[in-house]
Amino acid sequence: MGNQALKKLDDLGGKLIGEIEKQTSPSFETVVRSKGNIIFDQGVGYLRLGNKKEVRTFLNIAQARKFMQTIAIANKCRKFLVEGAHTSIRGLYYQLRFTLGEDIEEDLFDEQTESNPLIEDLEVALSVKREDLNLNTDRKGVAAGQFKLRDKFGGEDTLIDGTKQGRSGWSIPSDVDNGLDFEEVKAKYVLVVEKDAMWQRLNEDRYWQKENCVLVTPKGQSSRGCRRFIRKLMDKGLPCYVFTDCDAWGWYIYWTLKTGSMNLAYLSKELSLPETKFVGVTMSDIKDYDFLSKLTIRAKEIDVKRAEEMINYPWISKHKDWVAELKLVLKDKKKLEQDALQGPRLSFVSDYLKQKINEKRFLS
Amino acid sequence: MGNQALKKLDDLGGKLIGEIEKQTSPSFETVVRSKGNIIFDQGVGYLRLGNKKEVRTFLNIAQARKFMQTIAIANKCRKFLVEGAHTSIRGLYYQLRFTLGEDIEEDLFDEQTESNPLIEDLEVALSVKREDLNLNTDRKGVAAGQFKLRDKFGGEDTLIDGTKQGRSGWSIPSDVDNGLDFEEVKAKYVLVVEKDAMWQRLNEDRYWQKENCVLVTPKGQSSRGCRRFIRKLMDKGLPCYVFTDCDAWGWYIYWTLKTGSMNLAYLSKELSLPETKFVGVTMSDIKDYDFLSKLTIRAKEIDVKRAEEMINYPWISKHKDWVAELKLVLKDKKKLEQDALQGPRLSFVSDYLKQKINEKRFLS
Repeated sequence: MGNQALKKLDDLGGKLIGEIEKQTSPSFETVVRSKGNIIFDQGVGYLRLGNKKEVRTFLNIAQARKFMQTIAIANKCRKFLVEGAHTSIRGLYYQLRFTLGEDIEEDLFDEQTESNPLIEDLEVALSVKREDLNLNTDRKGVAAGQFKLRDKFGGEDTLIDGTKQGRSGWSIPSDVDNGLDFEEVKAKYVLVVEKDAMWQRLNEDRYWQKENCVLVTPKGQSSRGCRRFIRKLMDKGLPCYVFTDCDAWGWYIYWTLKTGSMNLAYLSKELSLPETKFVGVTMSDIKDYDFLSKLTIRAKEIDVKRAEEMINYPWISKHKDWVAELKLVLKDKKKLEQDALQGPRLSFVSDYLKQKINEKRFLS
Repeated sequence: MGNQALKKLDDLGGKLIGEIEKQTSPSFETVVRSKGNIIFDQGVGYLRLGNKKEVRTFLNIAQARKFMQTIAIANKCRKFLVEGAHTSIRGLYYQLRFTLGEDIEEDLFDEQTESNPLIEDLEVALSVKREDLNLNTDRKGVAAGQFKLRDKFGGEDTLIDGTKQGRSGWSIPSDVDNGLDFEEVKAKYVLVVEKDAMWQRLNEDRYWQKENCVLVTPKGQSSRGCRRFIRKLMDKGLPCYVFTDCDAWGWYIYWTLKTGSMNLAYLSKELSLPETKFVGVTMSDIKDYDFLSKLTIRAKEIDVKRAEEMINYPWISKHKDWVAELKLVLKDKKKLEQDALQGPRLSFVSDYLKQKINEKRFLS
């Protein structure tokens, strides 16, 4: 992708120069990312952008400044690609301030937040991710299990063996596409565990070895890199099961993984996981695991409110099992944490997951 | 430590049983952890507990409940040690709820926050860390460089090679003491970098290889595990240099690493790094690196307020270089981010660090 991204940047530059030579206004086309152009696509099962496009043109008082900023960003990213070096958008921001000099600085990029939508413009206009432009995003999430990766980075070539990560696990990086390739995937499925503490518990039980899977924790809401990593495993044919708390935050994590999010709807194709299934915890688990009834917590207002909202979302209301689950929450006004499964003994949580996954007891 | 901790728990249990058999009230002694018993010890260079002790006794209306809770926790931790399994304090909480049954539950441990000070009681009374009791703490932070570790965990023995961690680095775990031993440390110093994005930048430059060091990022404020990991490297004779933003948050990160914190004063001996030095960024860098004057940011109110406070701390006021630096901040009302060093070119930050460390231009 590195080379492809470079070519796309060069093509954009060539096009702009052509327009200048023809004495027309330089311009480029992007897709509208505002709420009005985000749709839930039943066919593919995720949120994506619609077809509304807009043209950014230099000779337009309202757009000239942003246009210039966007081109300055494109120029820097091109340089990073040629140098083969990565940075954060904060690093990019300082490069721009340095280049443009003291006098222009304050007007041009005094706020980093200003550069974010411009980078999104570039991502959409060129059909690349910022990771492909050597811009690092916040990384979060850890994995272990039956996979091997070849990591080409900083002039070195390193074999990452997911079965040899000890207590720590492999830290999922910002960019899992460029210079990072699976060498082998023996695992049969991906298990996503909301909390890092629970991931550590399962890692200690060597769940990924016993059940032949890849054990992932996004540590709460999932980073771009983490979603992309799971997507790549699913593209190899692995199913994915998600294990969160039974509460507003847990459901949110699951549905964002599955259907994507408003913010990143422009990248849903690469980041969303519509085939994923929910393994637990559910309020209906109580009828199968008696002791859980002792270990519930009173639902907070936000949990109840969220359950009420979710029942009516068109992409949820058609899932009868989810509707039944949410109704249980609304009836009992209780919630359950994944940690409660450690109540009888620490390793019970492994047995629970094994059983539910083998018996395919999912919410879809 | 695992076995030592087990012995300490057994000794405590034996003592309590002895007291019961003698028909006296079971009791144990701990050290007062409130602010009034925390002192800055000039001799060792960190915050630590004073000598005030208190006795917790069972036959005391005000203490009976807490006493019982503490013993219940000690009992569970003993079980975890015997089983060789770890959990979080959330896992512990559910084990206690499960054991004690539905009727007592609400009274005994309805809030997890309640168990935290009780665990601290145990840590202090037994002179162990909760990590030694198989309780995981939040982990954060990443390292790479010239070190090798042997990680005995989950029945496996894994070699962690700090030079073969690719783009990700080695994730610093909760417990870096039990079953985790250095096999080799070739590095000559430890470099602690505030931000993960900057760590990734330096990792890509293979700074740890070129400069023969261990490159650590705590990702902001440092976790217990991260502080302990650096402490262990320093105990092997490595000096430690810290690289943060020149602002309130950066200074806080540095001084907490160096002198410990109020919250963890009871563990300062194992967690604080009084010998550590500050490599940058400083406002005084501007006279050596001209371009930085273009890349400052207006200081926020909190930065100014913090600088004013810090000048008067007894453990800071004796450091003339720090006082001069803080006065510069107060005069100019500006701040500098470590990312600004990427302004001229992405790899400039490596040159800056190399130069300042070789020339020993530190604030101490």
